Amino acid sequence: MPPPAHDERLMRQALREAELAFAQGEIPIGAVVAHNGTGQIIGRGHNQTEQLRDVTAHAEMLALTAAANYLGNKYLHDCTLYVTVEPCVMCAGATAWAQVPRVVYGTPEPKVGYSRHGQLLHPRCQVLTGVLADECAALMQRFFADKRK
Amino acid sequence: MPPPAHDERLMRQALREAELAFAQGEIPIGAVVAHNGTGQIIGRGHNQTEQLRDVTAHAEMLALTAAANYLGNKYLHDCTLYVTVEPCVMCAGATAWAQVPRVVYGTPEPKVGYSRHGQLLHPRCQVLTGVLADECAALMQRFFADKRK
Repeated sequence: MPPPAHDERLMRQALREAELAFAQGEIPIGAVVAHNGTGQIIGRGHNQTEQLRDVTAHAEMLALTAAANYLGNKYLHDCTLYVTVEPCVMCAGATAWAQVPRVVYGTPEPKVGYSRHGQLLHPRCQVLTGVLADECAALMQRFFADKRK
Repeated sequence: MPPPAHDERLMRQALREAELAFAQGEIPIGAVVAHNGTGQIIGRGHNQTEQLRDVTAHAEMLALTAAANYLGNKYLHDCTLYVTVEPCVMCAGATAWAQVPRVVYGTPEPKVGYSRHGQLLHPRCQVLTGVLADECAALMQRFFADKRK
């Protein structure tokens, strides 16, 4: 498992993805998948549901698919998913199917986050939250404040 | 909403998709998305997780994305999703995001079906189950019996 310094570095990469989404008028959520041993990023994604007109194009889904393509393996057994906001039910389900053993997310999502439905991740998945939480939350708040103007 | 005869005709199309998956060595699950007014199929998919090495390539996900591409709209407000087996958590989450108002599935999936986690579909989604249930279940049983040989 990567040390905490890795977690912050990798969450900052997920935040960079979220900023790309923001710039494209998408709800600003970003994700990366990194190899646990090396910390190497093997998949990236930012929310593209509007651009692609496809509800399945969440940051996590795109990052998981990219990582699987990179590895040539649908199981991401030695990886961590970093995502700026708590995953939804769909993304938690995909993370479980991929048997991702570790998820790090920035800020909770009380309305549509998976955790209000109980344990939807893989039974052995470890979850860490709160990494760069303020920055991840601030980007979301700025997006929705702009929308309301 | 389509009459029951439509449901059987459209589930048979989903079964045809499931048979394509079976022939490709994939867990045999198929799905179609049909327009409620006309019964026209606007999206199809069969499980391709092995072929694509991607856990997100479930029949329902592919059919939902195809339907959204057809409509140019990520919301499938006037559609029914037909799927041979009860959707998983991931696919239920995607169906909820797409605001699909009606889901028809063939046979329950007690282990990984969404329903053991409660209501994960859209709050206004109607669910009908049992359409061609025996045929949908038999195809799954045949697949796993072959695997055990």
